[in-house]
Amino acid sequence: MTIVQVELGPRSYPIFIGSGLLADRSMLASQIESRQIMIVSNTTVAPLYIGLVEEALEGRSVHSVILPDGEEFKTLESFEKIISALLEQHFDRSCTLLALGGGVIGDLAGYAAASYQRGVKFVQIPTTLLAQVDSSVGGKTAVNHPLGKNMIGSFHQPTCVIADLATLNTLPQRELRAGLAEIIKYGLIDDPEFFVWLEKHLEDLLLLDKDCLEHAIRQSCQNKANIVATDELESGIRALLNLGHTFGHGLENVLGYGRWLHGEAVACGMSMAADLSTRMGLMHEGDYARVVSLISRAGLPIAPPENVDPMSLENAMKIDKKNRGGRIRLVLLRSIGDAFLCDDYPTTDFRNVLRNSKGAVTN
Amino acid sequence: MTIVQVELGPRSYPIFIGSGLLADRSMLASQIESRQIMIVSNTTVAPLYIGLVEEALEGRSVHSVILPDGEEFKTLESFEKIISALLEQHFDRSCTLLALGGGVIGDLAGYAAASYQRGVKFVQIPTTLLAQVDSSVGGKTAVNHPLGKNMIGSFHQPTCVIADLATLNTLPQRELRAGLAEIIKYGLIDDPEFFVWLEKHLEDLLLLDKDCLEHAIRQSCQNKANIVATDELESGIRALLNLGHTFGHGLENVLGYGRWLHGEAVACGMSMAADLSTRMGLMHEGDYARVVSLISRAGLPIAPPENVDPMSLENAMKIDKKNRGGRIRLVLLRSIGDAFLCDDYPTTDFRNVLRNSKGAVTN
Repeated sequence: MTIVQVELGPRSYPIFIGSGLLADRSMLASQIESRQIMIVSNTTVAPLYIGLVEEALEGRSVHSVILPDGEEFKTLESFEKIISALLEQHFDRSCTLLALGGGVIGDLAGYAAASYQRGVKFVQIPTTLLAQVDSSVGGKTAVNHPLGKNMIGSFHQPTCVIADLATLNTLPQRELRAGLAEIIKYGLIDDPEFFVWLEKHLEDLLLLDKDCLEHAIRQSCQNKANIVATDELESGIRALLNLGHTFGHGLENVLGYGRWLHGEAVACGMSMAADLSTRMGLMHEGDYARVVSLISRAGLPIAPPENVDPMSLENAMKIDKKNRGGRIRLVLLRSIGDAFLCDDYPTTDFRNVLRNSKGAVTN
Repeated sequence: MTIVQVELGPRSYPIFIGSGLLADRSMLASQIESRQIMIVSNTTVAPLYIGLVEEALEGRSVHSVILPDGEEFKTLESFEKIISALLEQHFDRSCTLLALGGGVIGDLAGYAAASYQRGVKFVQIPTTLLAQVDSSVGGKTAVNHPLGKNMIGSFHQPTCVIADLATLNTLPQRELRAGLAEIIKYGLIDDPEFFVWLEKHLEDLLLLDKDCLEHAIRQSCQNKANIVATDELESGIRALLNLGHTFGHGLENVLGYGRWLHGEAVACGMSMAADLSTRMGLMHEGDYARVVSLISRAGLPIAPPENVDPMSLENAMKIDKKNRGGRIRLVLLRSIGDAFLCDDYPTTDFRNVLRNSKGAVTN
């Protein structure tokens, strides 16, 4: 087992990474102090793992809210369901919410924990690769609004994160690949050595090699933890973690939530950000080719579906938390491992990327 | 004009107290930096004061959400309306929400500001006495849930509070009296001299004497600011500010939100807390008589309506954020100006207070 510590002063917390952590009953029991525990999970994950969690917490007052599976349920309505369950069970302010599932469950349960009685404790058990390397680290919680993704939420740090590699054995291949998108992202932002390591080990990760998985998850969590520790509330450098996400959120919005997985949209968004960076003469063609190649090897998209209208995509991208004064802010790349925030790019290049005129070449 | 500074490190902010502050256009303009400003108000207050605010902010991108007036609209649905308005107007993270109204508007707009894009700036212009002395100070935001008051919310400090005494000229007499409940509360908690001052000046306050009002509001805000500065997130001493509120929230719940004003319920709750403290031999009969007398002089209730069922009231009080392990925690009084948190009181005394067997005597 590896422990990555997220350093945030009084809100610091550990991320436990290892195989079989849920089956180890003492682990969970020792990490949760509360008498009242509400497990938030979904119809896919609960049948697989909720039994292990309930066994580990035997003797406490444990209840659960099981939501339907999917990004389309990351709504204020699901949030209200969790709050209602807490009130119906007379949960008090000393309770703990436990998120058992992927990013959607973590974001929803986290926002409920942030808001119930103005804030209660929160533990994350991410069961997808994407949640283990990204959404469960850093305290961002949110629900979607019909007009924009993650527009309602808060910063609320968990008391700990338990990433059990064993849960990845039941993860559909498509979701595993989606998780790789966020892992690749950390290499691109500021860790060129990790990018090289990924170029060497991508197939091992797809085959669920335990040592490689543990290394990739640890490295990703450590990279994210470093950035979050510097800028908890995203007033500066943390925005770099949104590499690929402005294009990606726009794509998810235009395609309709749930058609592409978040990681797929981010992968495509990173290709588009690399494409724009290359068109602007910032990044070498060679680096661009490496980016597109690694994303393709992971089985992830590098261009939007052909039926996506560029103007609709541009409009969808205008609703983004990084934007200021109506200008779309993007994370671009000077090279692999050197990302920066930019709102000063030529509109022509930007629109050419949206029009995907290079799509035929790189696909 | 008086300024009370709330000391919360990087989240410190000023409360401006004075008459005619809204009519002074430079005041508001200098306090708000944002280009995009969303005014949240209600159908009662907006016609009276929104024009002044809009004039002061001329040249900015100012929009508004006008909600129906009343506690029954302090819901997740109203919250969602504010979020939708922000998204429809493409408001970005540098915007400011401005609450123009009483406690309901402040709590709602505050929770929307805390949650929109995970947190944006927030300015309070409280237009009721109660909001000026209580709800606009300290950063508590919330909406109600059918199963409990203020159960969904967060701590989110404003960037400033502008309390214009001139707005009290249009305040209905009943709401003015409700505001006095919270003012009396500060005397009871830890300021016996202020309680004596109130005994002398209560009628001046009811007649809207400007100097007396400014003194009472300043003293109240200063008392609350001192407590909040010591315990921003209510892990200890801040709970004392809930004197009268556990009984009061229970009453509001049992009577149905909106039948009694919040201040009326708190006034009754403070009488009941004083009653219980006296029955337990903690507080002298003489002090109890002074409490009940001052509350009565303010035209506020000192006992629940006769048709309130004691068991229903007790059950409603079980849903309270201060409670731990199923026990109702109360703020009780050793004397005027000496409140403390207590969950170790005789159930018989507690139930006698709920049964209001003293009601006939003190009424």
